[in-house]
Amino acid sequence: MALPRTATTFAPPVMEARRWLEGVSFPPNRPLLNVSQAAPVDPPPAPLREVMAEMVLSVPSVHLYGPVLGLPALREEIAAQWSSTYAGAIRPDQVAVTAGCNQAYCAAVSTLCGDGDEVILPVPYYFNHRMWNDMAGVVTVPLTCGPGLIPEAERAATLVNPRTRAIVLVSPNNPGGAEYPAETLRAFLELARTHGIALIVDETYRDFDSRQGAPHDLFGDPDWDDTLIHLYSFSKAYRLTGHRVGAILAAPARLAGVEKFLDTVAICAPQLGQHAALWGMRHLKDWVAAERREILDRRAAIVEGFPRLAAKGWELLGCGAYFAYATHPLAEPSDTLARRLVPDAGILLLPGTMFMPEGDPEGARGLRIAFANVDRPGIGALIDRLDVVTP
Amino acid sequence: MALPRTATTFAPPVMEARRWLEGVSFPPNRPLLNVSQAAPVDPPPAPLREVMAEMVLSVPSVHLYGPVLGLPALREEIAAQWSSTYAGAIRPDQVAVTAGCNQAYCAAVSTLCGDGDEVILPVPYYFNHRMWNDMAGVVTVPLTCGPGLIPEAERAATLVNPRTRAIVLVSPNNPGGAEYPAETLRAFLELARTHGIALIVDETYRDFDSRQGAPHDLFGDPDWDDTLIHLYSFSKAYRLTGHRVGAILAAPARLAGVEKFLDTVAICAPQLGQHAALWGMRHLKDWVAAERREILDRRAAIVEGFPRLAAKGWELLGCGAYFAYATHPLAEPSDTLARRLVPDAGILLLPGTMFMPEGDPEGARGLRIAFANVDRPGIGALIDRLDVVTP
Repeated sequence: MALPRTATTFAPPVMEARRWLEGVSFPPNRPLLNVSQAAPVDPPPAPLREVMAEMVLSVPSVHLYGPVLGLPALREEIAAQWSSTYAGAIRPDQVAVTAGCNQAYCAAVSTLCGDGDEVILPVPYYFNHRMWNDMAGVVTVPLTCGPGLIPEAERAATLVNPRTRAIVLVSPNNPGGAEYPAETLRAFLELARTHGIALIVDETYRDFDSRQGAPHDLFGDPDWDDTLIHLYSFSKAYRLTGHRVGAILAAPARLAGVEKFLDTVAICAPQLGQHAALWGMRHLKDWVAAERREILDRRAAIVEGFPRLAAKGWELLGCGAYFAYATHPLAEPSDTLARRLVPDAGILLLPGTMFMPEGDPEGARGLRIAFANVDRPGIGALIDRLDVVTP
Repeated sequence: MALPRTATTFAPPVMEARRWLEGVSFPPNRPLLNVSQAAPVDPPPAPLREVMAEMVLSVPSVHLYGPVLGLPALREEIAAQWSSTYAGAIRPDQVAVTAGCNQAYCAAVSTLCGDGDEVILPVPYYFNHRMWNDMAGVVTVPLTCGPGLIPEAERAATLVNPRTRAIVLVSPNNPGGAEYPAETLRAFLELARTHGIALIVDETYRDFDSRQGAPHDLFGDPDWDDTLIHLYSFSKAYRLTGHRVGAILAAPARLAGVEKFLDTVAICAPQLGQHAALWGMRHLKDWVAAERREILDRRAAIVEGFPRLAAKGWELLGCGAYFAYATHPLAEPSDTLARRLVPDAGILLLPGTMFMPEGDPEGARGLRIAFANVDRPGIGALIDRLDVVTP
């Protein structure tokens, strides 16, 4: 007797963590530091809001259905800008627009896998990837990372078998914060191609990478679409989380499968968000660059403040884009600790157990700190409070 | 070897039909009559657009993530208005908001079914229901309808077996146009309850039902949520198709499963659309009533015009809400005919084959006419053109 699909997976971690706040009050001199969710807390910049308001008033098509695979102009703009950014050749028919990057992942896996197929995820993994695998009847094969939470293609090679359909990399990584070296991505592309499986690369946090230039050269390969599936989100760069816009780049034949999935689950991505993403791509480069500098400064604040915690046995395993991923020295497991940090330290963060297979001992030691919304003084306070609760 | 999920189903019919238009030109004196898609072609009324524009400018939360199960105020409004409309008792925790009604269906089935489970769909069925069943590994069991395209609980009873998880009814029906009698819905509820399976009732077109008052009394049953799952769309009533907002009403325990699905596939429904739906529910009752009168007048125009076609062997099997469903007397199958009607008659409609299991002979005779966007003169022209192509 098959379990219903939703019974095969766990409750959404972000919503579960939000429930830990219920009934807890935070004194004015120690307000809640919410480092649980990787999402902007401010609206898009005013010029974009003004353009969106004008479109709501006078562009009828923002209220109507659009093509399942997205606005043609947005697909063209993505193809053109990605071709330039990655020094590659990407055509509009290799691009589709989704209602967020989670949906892009679900669609990709649905074109690759049937019941009992396997997908390799480096651990710690992004929990929604695990949840979709579960609900799709796909076996998640965990890949232990090397130093700095960087996955290694040679180790992944030992996990590939005839049921393997894909390897999934997220760079910069959620939850680990690691920026994967270009050579790592290249090695994984070659591994995947050798085995005739897909390489899914989720670059949701790409715009906040600390490195200059393209983070990899995979699109420079003229045959990239025989193996690579690239995922992206417009939620972070332009603060459009509430509008649900993401993208998937893949071979046109695969996008024909994506079209079936999107038509059935979403019909199309919301139109206003697609228009907003297009306007943002054309007009907000400088604004995004300034956002990136601010995030990188916050990242520096974490790195600068961490030695005080390291002296007490904490370890910063990765730090980049929106995330720091650390291990704690306390005796209790991370899920108990995270829950206790709400009343005891006024901090809401997610425990490593949410990013690992059940029972993985590493999960009990890890904590994800989504620091992007906390400014330098706030990060100072965060370090202080973690210091105080550490014996 | 399991097929990838998207390889288990067919390409989106609406997109396929849209491709039939490529390369065809329509003379000014015979413009295209597009009766292929059940969607408004005009934007929401001006007062709603103005409110939305103002929210885009000055309500930050319309740009940010919201709770997975929807805006609390919208869930409350739905619970209150539905309780009143259906003379029932519906609580906010029995309501969730989805990114459109298709997504509500996918979520519902995901809480009910695992691989190899069965769901009963009256034929002709809504193709996206069939597509999701396919992709979810669910066996679609077709139920032949009685006169007037009304399904019969006694006949459905013969199809229930230990793998059956749900029966799905759409009323007013897409594609059939039938308005199911309250007794039919009641009989299905009792059948489903007797067998411990779910009854999914999709009322996307409810606001255009020709009958006065509540279309059924199922919510009057204090235990409705042990069996009933109700689906709804805000796309039609307020012309919000491009904003993707729908709803699902079910037991709170089932909505916990829905929350897993939505979190993974969508994170949340778009926020602006949710606010727009809420405003529409509070302020657009009279406007929707006028829209309904117009649609009912168009329905009358179809019924009044049809005898000319009936004299040549056409049969109108159902007509209601957005749809007329007819059989044609021509020698060719409906999929060939539909394709030919684009150049030969300037009509785009969907053939019955798209709403039936492959090989069902009834599919070759049927045609769906989504007439809601065509005014009286247009419906006159539609009848004329169908008359001309009929020998």
